[in-house]
Amino acid sequence: MPAATFDRSDFREAMARMGAAVNIITTKGPDGDTGMTASAVCSVTDDPATVLVCINRASRLHEIFKNSGIMCVNVLTHVHEELSPIFAGKGNLPMAERFAHGDWIRLATGAPVLESAAASLDCKVSQSVDVGTHTVFFCAVQAIHLGQSSSGLVYQGRAYHPIQRKLD
Amino acid sequence: MPAATFDRSDFREAMARMGAAVNIITTKGPDGDTGMTASAVCSVTDDPATVLVCINRASRLHEIFKNSGIMCVNVLTHVHEELSPIFAGKGNLPMAERFAHGDWIRLATGAPVLESAAASLDCKVSQSVDVGTHTVFFCAVQAIHLGQSSSGLVYQGRAYHPIQRKLD
Repeated sequence: MPAATFDRSDFREAMARMGAAVNIITTKGPDGDTGMTASAVCSVTDDPATVLVCINRASRLHEIFKNSGIMCVNVLTHVHEELSPIFAGKGNLPMAERFAHGDWIRLATGAPVLESAAASLDCKVSQSVDVGTHTVFFCAVQAIHLGQSSSGLVYQGRAYHPIQRKLD
Repeated sequence: MPAATFDRSDFREAMARMGAAVNIITTKGPDGDTGMTASAVCSVTDDPATVLVCINRASRLHEIFKNSGIMCVNVLTHVHEELSPIFAGKGNLPMAERFAHGDWIRLATGAPVLESAAASLDCKVSQSVDVGTHTVFFCAVQAIHLGQSSSGLVYQGRAYHPIQRKLD
């Protein structure tokens, strides 16, 4: 097999073309609630119900998620297109101000749950694997909240795309 | 923390609400080319460029991907909505007949590469982790092909959704 030959910009373009659901992942630590927007989230297995979340170890929030061991994955709907950038760091708001936006409740772990999300998966981290610059957190589901809307929000081609249910 | 309490049907509904890009993953083994549709695919890190793919160990194709150690992730566009079900097993076609559909080339590993895909990531499996019923394959990118179209195809709410670039 020849040596790998491609530009990193090609990889980033390829990943931009791979659409992904937009989620806000949250946790509760000794300094309060923390949340960030994440699209590197994936279903793993339904037995035991598990999802995974990839977080860059260079992020200042990485240690907070790692130390807490709990994580809620909130799957956004088309109504959250303005909430997503707030938790992606737009305006660099303090956490308390970020959480002033959105309708937050609690379920099993105590991590913030977005009540209007399409779905929220309240999880305990069951294992983690470091791969390159990132940690992959495997998250065992403890409780689930299904929101009233089952529509979606996808990020693809460096743009948001609302996904309306065909029967809505 | 209370014991986990939710129905498995709630987990499946939550995962259905989490939209995902549709991909065809391929490999080349001693018995020829193999491919299957997969949406449990996720970007991990760009250093070294790595994606992950989750495959159910109960799938008869799991062993073929595991034994070959190579995997090409082909990110579908809106023009592939009819190709996706073929590789998801619709009609239960033999592999050779599945590959009669689509425009296939080869890059570094020898696995089939869909030339019209939005992006194809031709990979060597660098490590794997078993989680519940599934294996998570971490795939180190060896070569990249970017197709002419950067549009996408998302599966959400148990339906396909074409994602057209806003500037197309």
